[in-house]
Amino acid sequence: MTVPPEVVDRLARLDTASVSDALDSLGIRGVLAGVAARVPGARTAGLAHTVTYRPVDTGTDEPGKAKFHNAANYLDDVPAGSVVVVDNAGSTDCTNWGSLLTTLARRRDVRGTVLHGSARDVAEIRAMGYPLFSTGVTMVSGKNRVELAATGLEITVGGTTVRPGDVVVADDNGALVVPAEHAAEVADRAERVEGTESAIAGAIAEGLRLDEARRRFGYAKPWDGPATAEPAGAHRA
Amino acid sequence: MTVPPEVVDRLARLDTASVSDALDSLGIRGVLAGVAARVPGARTAGLAHTVTYRPVDTGTDEPGKAKFHNAANYLDDVPAGSVVVVDNAGSTDCTNWGSLLTTLARRRDVRGTVLHGSARDVAEIRAMGYPLFSTGVTMVSGKNRVELAATGLEITVGGTTVRPGDVVVADDNGALVVPAEHAAEVADRAERVEGTESAIAGAIAEGLRLDEARRRFGYAKPWDGPATAEPAGAHRA
Amino acid sequence: MTVPPEVVDRLARLDTASVSDALDSLGIRGVLAGVAARVPGARTAGLAHTVTYRPVDTGTDEPGKAKFHNAANYLDDVPAGSVVVVDNAGSTDCTNWGSLLTTLARRRDVRGTVLHGSARDVAEIRAMGYPLFSTGVTMVSGKNRVELAATGLEITVGGTTVRPGDVVVADDNGALVVPAEHAAEVADRAERVEGTESAIAGAIAEGLRLDEARRRFGYAKPWDGPATAEPAGAHRA
Repeated sequence: MTVPPEVVDRLARLDTASVSDALDSLGIRGVLAGVAARVPGARTAGLAHTVTYRPVDTGTDEPGKAKFHNAANYLDDVPAGSVVVVDNAGSTDCTNWGSLLTTLARRRDVRGTVLHGSARDVAEIRAMGYPLFSTGVTMVSGKNRVELAATGLEITVGGTTVRPGDVVVADDNGALVVPAEHAAEVADRAERVEGTESAIAGAIAEGLRLDEARRRFGYAKPWDGPATAEPAGAHRA
Repeated sequence: MTVPPEVVDRLARLDTASVSDALDSLGIRGVLAGVAARVPGARTAGLAHTVTYRPVDTGTDEPGKAKFHNAANYLDDVPAGSVVVVDNAGSTDCTNWGSLLTTLARRRDVRGTVLHGSARDVAEIRAMGYPLFSTGVTMVSGKNRVELAATGLEITVGGTTVRPGDVVVADDNGALVVPAEHAAEVADRAERVEGTESAIAGAIAEGLRLDEARRRFGYAKPWDGPATAEPAGAHRA
Repeated sequence: MTVPPEVVDRLARLDTASVSDALDSLGIRGVLAGVAARVPGARTAGLAHTVTYRPVDTGTDEPGKAKFHNAANYLDDVPAGSVVVVDNAGSTDCTNWGSLLTTLARRRDVRGTVLHGSARDVAEIRAMGYPLFSTGVTMVSGKNRVELAATGLEITVGGTTVRPGDVVVADDNGALVVPAEHAAEVADRAERVEGTESAIAGAIAEGLRLDEARRRFGYAKPWDGPATAEPAGAHRA
């Protein structure tokens, strides 16, 4: 199934914390563990475009024959609105992303990149404010170390499955994936979580005790609350 | 014993580096290893308020019975001037702190939080300038994964014991603990360390060699020096 | 051999990514794996001045006899233009660098510090904008934990050999070393890599596909290209 753009946009306005709580309420694992934000303040949501790398088979590699060069141009064909999700087995030894790909990603309205692997050119990418998330940072190229194996496959990042078309949501807390078939329900629940949290935060700022605020606004099951800060039956000036 | 507020305030004005050197001079281990600053530039000192989490025993958990919700409201009762120190066994899988607790902590004049565990909502907490230190960052809630076991117990963080009422000092270098009974002596010695270091730094900035400056200002035992930048017998314009 | 200052200056203007690609083209390993930038935006290149620490032999250490204090003043004798490279076995338990050494390094025109080990006073060092790279950050002094063993020895950092007089290049992506005898050739090739990358980036910004831009500007062997953004035979307005 295809997640409607308005659902992706709703998820893009939500924090990963709220989306994660909504996934919890449905018993779904979403966290892409071990992938950290590399551009402070950058956040994104978009449809996963999966990319799989594998080590270059140097044993059979003929000298002078550069196998993967054409393959690594996959970004030319990534649709606008995607988040690129790269499976390079969590490598911190070589990179799969840098400033050149970031320039092209921006031009193609790609919404961000999540690497189970490493990036370089992080200073330039920070200056561009591009949403980049990765296992590590180094300057060593993946060229002649890894090669593109496939795009569009189901991959596993930090113990969580990512399928093409699932929704990736990422911010300073890290990155997670929302299965496409649950995206609308997760957006609903996450909005209610944020409504509940916002109501509790407002009450605390006004001096209410945490236990009382949580009881009043239904913190035990925040996804059952309203999607705004307005508690049922309450009137706030 | 209770550490007097003026001793805590003196420790709050000192770098963790100087406090650590003072602890070294007394043969006391203070570093809370593996706990990193999450809000650049934030620093704090305060009386440890210890909090212990344990995994939820899902085997015996009755469906629908949310055991820990009331327990997790411990922050309502933390005294002003405390630093909350949470023992969640160094977990990077789920969180024990976020923006809601930060809002309440600010309101209650809690001075900071040190997690042997992880935090979420780090962008909001950075925007608030709240002193937060943790093992990791993720967006996954601790809810239904861990539960409050106790507050006010002696805990161990990175191989170092933290007792309620000990003084926690933390800055960009990390976090450490000063045993309550040594707090006044450590503040004395750390102030002398800073005085010695400041004298050496001033002399170096004026062109003195490091070996000569260290000899002149007694770097071998800096805690024996004066608590100001004025070396004994020296007159600086 | 001694690397001429103009070659060091050319390397100082290059990104570690380009220098790493040039090293790759020659089959040379340069990355100092596991060493991360501690001062965002700071970059450097200079001649390696190697420093080796070893654990203090507390078993035979006579009480009151502080063995290493004079030794740790090596920085007084480091030549201008050096990058200090410290081998403390990658320790995250204690530090070999802080604000005092940074002040002296600045005064002596030392260009930066790379620690296979840890630093403290990182907030002050960030404020000074000094190029600092390390395995870890903590506040615990190395004093009476490690002692200077030697300077000027060949050392190994993250699996890569660093010899005195090799050129260390470091930026937000991390740190690497260029063997002295290859420095001029690496600078040549890295400038060509940057020229090729710049030409490709320009073409992409103007809407060319990545595969076409890479073909046109010879991405497969970017070190064969011109050291400017001008492709052979192309006329750009």
